[in-house]
Amino acid sequence: MQTADPFLFQLFFIFVWAKLFGEVFERLHLPAVLGEILAGMLVGPYGARLVVPDEAIYSIAQIGAIFLLFTVGLETQPKDLLSVGRTSLYVALAGVALPFICGFGYMALRHNPIHEAAFVAAAMVATSVGIAARVLGDMRVLHTRPARIILGAAVFDDVLGMILLGVVIGVISNSSTQWVQLTITSLEAIGFAVVMLFYAPRVVRRIEPGLERMSTQNAPLIIAIVICLGLSYAAVKIGMAAIIGAFFAGLAFAEYSPRWNLRPRAMAINEFLAPFFFFSMGARLNLAVFDRRLIVSAIIVSALAFFSKLIGCGLPVLHSGWKTALKVGVGMVPRGEVGLIVALVGLQMNIVSPSAYALVIFMTGTTTLVAPPLMKLIFREDAPPEEEFIERRRVW
Amino acid sequence: MQTADPFLFQLFFIFVWAKLFGEVFERLHLPAVLGEILAGMLVGPYGARLVVPDEAIYSIAQIGAIFLLFTVGLETQPKDLLSVGRTSLYVALAGVALPFICGFGYMALRHNPIHEAAFVAAAMVATSVGIAARVLGDMRVLHTRPARIILGAAVFDDVLGMILLGVVIGVISNSSTQWVQLTITSLEAIGFAVVMLFYAPRVVRRIEPGLERMSTQNAPLIIAIVICLGLSYAAVKIGMAAIIGAFFAGLAFAEYSPRWNLRPRAMAINEFLAPFFFFSMGARLNLAVFDRRLIVSAIIVSALAFFSKLIGCGLPVLHSGWKTALKVGVGMVPRGEVGLIVALVGLQMNIVSPSAYALVIFMTGTTTLVAPPLMKLIFREDAPPEEEFIERRRVW
Repeated sequence: MQTADPFLFQLFFIFVWAKLFGEVFERLHLPAVLGEILAGMLVGPYGARLVVPDEAIYSIAQIGAIFLLFTVGLETQPKDLLSVGRTSLYVALAGVALPFICGFGYMALRHNPIHEAAFVAAAMVATSVGIAARVLGDMRVLHTRPARIILGAAVFDDVLGMILLGVVIGVISNSSTQWVQLTITSLEAIGFAVVMLFYAPRVVRRIEPGLERMSTQNAPLIIAIVICLGLSYAAVKIGMAAIIGAFFAGLAFAEYSPRWNLRPRAMAINEFLAPFFFFSMGARLNLAVFDRRLIVSAIIVSALAFFSKLIGCGLPVLHSGWKTALKVGVGMVPRGEVGLIVALVGLQMNIVSPSAYALVIFMTGTTTLVAPPLMKLIFREDAPPEEEFIERRRVW
Repeated sequence: MQTADPFLFQLFFIFVWAKLFGEVFERLHLPAVLGEILAGMLVGPYGARLVVPDEAIYSIAQIGAIFLLFTVGLETQPKDLLSVGRTSLYVALAGVALPFICGFGYMALRHNPIHEAAFVAAAMVATSVGIAARVLGDMRVLHTRPARIILGAAVFDDVLGMILLGVVIGVISNSSTQWVQLTITSLEAIGFAVVMLFYAPRVVRRIEPGLERMSTQNAPLIIAIVICLGLSYAAVKIGMAAIIGAFFAGLAFAEYSPRWNLRPRAMAINEFLAPFFFFSMGARLNLAVFDRRLIVSAIIVSALAFFSKLIGCGLPVLHSGWKTALKVGVGMVPRGEVGLIVALVGLQMNIVSPSAYALVIFMTGTTTLVAPPLMKLIFREDAPPEEEFIERRRVW
């Protein structure tokens, strides 16, 4: 195994650097994931070049992205949608449409290619429920109506974001601008999502009795991994992204996740693989692209991402008062791993340029950093008097 | 991610084939791992060529081997050694020495290179405690003295096997046959093992309070992974195998494993990675090497592996009667993943030829298949009358 030297070296040091930066960020009450990305930027190939990931690491990062989205799906409990269903759906819909339109419009105005504009816009859509849930949980206001609307909307948001990504990739890979073709492709993506949403959980329910008769140990986890990898592969086969399949695979198992104890075990796999993904994320970011023009654009894109989400998500609940609208709007602002993965998919497909990729990472960072302090401010009135801030928990 | 097609394809199909064969083997009451290896032989590059793993898969298989040995270490509870300590130690020592001598002698007589002979002999040493524990547990005779001696000896056996592997690799990589150098290298390997055995758990104990103050979520798992990867890398750096470091890392955390709930989470990572390891194991086995001469050799090596273990482990307990000696001897016969990994390390270092690699896999298969029925026969007298065979549990 001495030939394995460089690989083991990278494996060890990437994990250590990512976790070291993650720990520092946690202590500063910042999202750990931003720390892991920063580690890739600073010690990776465009930084100090202490660790330069090779293909094998990028392969592991790719599996990391698949398991990340699988876990996101697994945590998307359909029952969360029922409590404040309709309101959350409207919030999610407007909160997906407005950022997409703003992002697409700005990128097109900036004379970026249409395909790239669509991709960046798709990356601006996905809300990270983890950030909001953490802040709300720490403040003990998870039971309030705005909080429940946020959590429900974030779930719809994930599903809508995945459908949107499917449509964008489908349209781009057909490289046709005819409306008929565009409509067919969009319907395909939506069809895949609908089948996954309604049919896949039923398949899981059907195989459930068989699972318990299987001889293989940990059969539920094994079958979940098989379906996760299988749907990822299927998604790529029909011209979408692997993560879309992984997300819907997680969703299909969400109902049985507590019973089969899937989440902690998927999380353990994640815990090992995800740092390689976030590190590679940063390692692919060439800091040299940040000239003055790009910095201005990055600030504009971040502002657009912030306000379009705030307004898009706030409007549908404005009838409940501007305070509720503000709370829901701000709570939906943080973007997360889904947006990052969308940008990476674009980069790998050579549709997103390194500078547009940098825009997305910058936008994700700023929205994630800005929203939590604002949320603390506006949710303060709802917090119980004997508030004990239980800090020091993981963010994403 | 469309460029990822072949990788995702391999990822999905290798996992599915490995688990499919594993399930069939389980249903036939055979070790699942042999099924996973067979999958690699039959559908891999030397078989039907349905899936041909590329470098990225072999990298994942390598991480699989590291986590496999980490889990073996994690399950090696030092307290298991205390109950029947001295007897188990003697059983393990003689059970390591005799197979090594027999294996080395035969391979040398067969005019294989000395280095290769040493490697094959080292692969003949390691007992798989999983097989024996499963059979004994199913028969409800785990409480008997022979059973406790077997389990204790298997633990010593793992440690001794790792030290032996370290010495063999150390000696080979120095490529010197001078006795002085050989002694120094052996002492280095033993020194590494001693430091790991006695110092590493103390380090873990020392960092324990700090761990609970860390901000990173799942800090114990993260630190365990860091130390596992770090010691694997360190072991390679000083000229040993990565798995030796991983094994001792597991051993260092064994004491705290229940408290930090490490085992189920390491197992979940294993559950995903190990099939790639066992499949690759089979995929590297060129069935064409099995000519008549090699088949004869394979049968001789298997017989040597069987009887040398039986006699080596039986002799130290002969004073307790030949029945006890037989029980302990047969219980120590099955070889397992450790021997397989040793063979693979040799193959990767170009020290073990494809035909010697085939010998080791054949030997592992036969000892694993032959021992359980024999154990059932000779342990029958100890089984409680109302024996209910709880079959259908995972073997290794």
